[in-house]
Amino acid sequence: MHAQQMADTHPGARGRANDALTRCIESCFDCAQACTSCADACLSERSVAELRQCIRLDLDCADVCIAAGAVATRRTANQDALLVQMLETCAGFCRLCAEECEKHARHHEHCRGLPGLRARLPSGGDGDRHYRPLARAVDVAPTS
Amino acid sequence: MHAQQMADTHPGARGRANDALTRCIESCFDCAQACTSCADACLSERSVAELRQCIRLDLDCADVCIAAGAVATRRTANQDALLVQMLETCAGFCRLCAEECEKHARHHEHCRGLPGLRARLPSGGDGDRHYRPLARAVDVAPTS
Amino acid sequence: MHAQQMADTHPGARGRANDALTRCIESCFDCAQACTSCADACLSERSVAELRQCIRLDLDCADVCIAAGAVATRRTANQDALLVQMLETCAGFCRLCAEECEKHARHHEHCRGLPGLRARLPSGGDGDRHYRPLARAVDVAPTS
Amino acid sequence: MHAQQMADTHPGARGRANDALTRCIESCFDCAQACTSCADACLSERSVAELRQCIRLDLDCADVCIAAGAVATRRTANQDALLVQMLETCAGFCRLCAEECEKHARHHEHCRGLPGLRARLPSGGDGDRHYRPLARAVDVAPTS
Repeated sequence: MHAQQMADTHPGARGRANDALTRCIESCFDCAQACTSCADACLSERSVAELRQCIRLDLDCADVCIAAGAVATRRTANQDALLVQMLETCAGFCRLCAEECEKHARHHEHCRGLPGLRARLPSGGDGDRHYRPLARAVDVAPTS
Repeated sequence: MHAQQMADTHPGARGRANDALTRCIESCFDCAQACTSCADACLSERSVAELRQCIRLDLDCADVCIAAGAVATRRTANQDALLVQMLETCAGFCRLCAEECEKHARHHEHCRGLPGLRARLPSGGDGDRHYRPLARAVDVAPTS
Repeated sequence: MHAQQMADTHPGARGRANDALTRCIESCFDCAQACTSCADACLSERSVAELRQCIRLDLDCADVCIAAGAVATRRTANQDALLVQMLETCAGFCRLCAEECEKHARHHEHCRGLPGLRARLPSGGDGDRHYRPLARAVDVAPTS
Repeated sequence: MHAQQMADTHPGARGRANDALTRCIESCFDCAQACTSCADACLSERSVAELRQCIRLDLDCADVCIAAGAVATRRTANQDALLVQMLETCAGFCRLCAEECEKHARHHEHCRGLPGLRARLPSGGDGDRHYRPLARAVDVAPTS
């Protein structure tokens, strides 16, 4: 994705866009796509009846990530408190989604997390790849 | 909208869907449309340069409302705490958006709130019509 | 919803917003919510394995309806051809979703269409309630 | 993004996901983020009054790209015709958005297209980076 390049050309964001926020934005859109895909893959499984909760959390997480990614992209001046609240809410959905995915990760590869991401994320779950950069952004964004 | 009829036919929501939550869902989608329209109307104003913050908050609010409406529609079992957090976050964006709209309400009718809604809402702002039913849902949802 | 009141206060839409387009916008958001609810209700059914295609079409339809509703809300000057193309695409998803829902309407009330809507729509299916106003908007919008 | 890895683990998509479709999905989410950012950057410009149409097209394009990306991610069996129609509609918005952005590219860097992308795309415009992979996917998807 090109969130960094776009931020660099934004007249209101220069000097304010930080790496953590940019990674967070990219993670939001990435996670939304991955959750949409995971929900659809779960729907294709024979054991779909056991994956209902996973599908619902995937869909919730995808919707919240899209909104969080768009809000974090906008430079709505002086509203950092609300942005952080939105990112924390988003991180909550990601964490829950990761916990649910981990239960199925042994049987369903799409719930297992992505190889390249797992290398970077010790605890492994699907949504969790996303929560950690979010959490860092939450720490960093309001002070920047 | 038909959120109530849909909820009444949902095998997992029977007895659990409450009026406040249903109104909240409808308010979310209604508010998303109204905010999209208000942002576009602001863009059409001669004084668009003074309405930048209003446009951004409208767009943020629309994105968060769509996500909140979808999450509130789903019956993701046992996740009431996260649903309430999402609705409270959404209510925060609605409140901020209402405060900004009220600054422009004298000059721009689209920021003034809708006639039928203002009769029901003492304090008047555009997004505020939405925050109150949300807040009620937040009170009620976790106990139902 | 309040799409009409918002359109009436839009500086760029006065005299251009027509009833069919307003109904179309409201139908888009209404249908998105109903499809999200129908998908979730299908997920709750014992026979979820037979409803996979219905769930997918519901989710596709919800996503496309949200986008169509937002695009139709904006007054993007001189782009009627693209708006009509988007509404026709949306109508295609609604029609397909309605056909799939009708297959399950005998067993699943949430796929049956909503009582008040069925009275207005001879052919009955779930998404179809939405396609017809859309089609009218498609006829009317570009000439207004 | 990780669309390819997710597709590789999807039980219904194995052997069906093709490179063009995967690139198309990633382009949709990438373009949605970039258009959201470009709209917000345009809002920050002194000459915002001259950028209204660019902002509207950016917002339309972002909404349609999110929907197209989600629909293309799902493996809704046998609905390739409708998927192609959605991608073509999306490509129409991207093309229009690129044409508008090119008018402002001399003055506004965020409308200029991203350095890395421009190297890959002869004609340069902002949205255009997106249209071309989409068009390839449209050619390829229905035959896969």
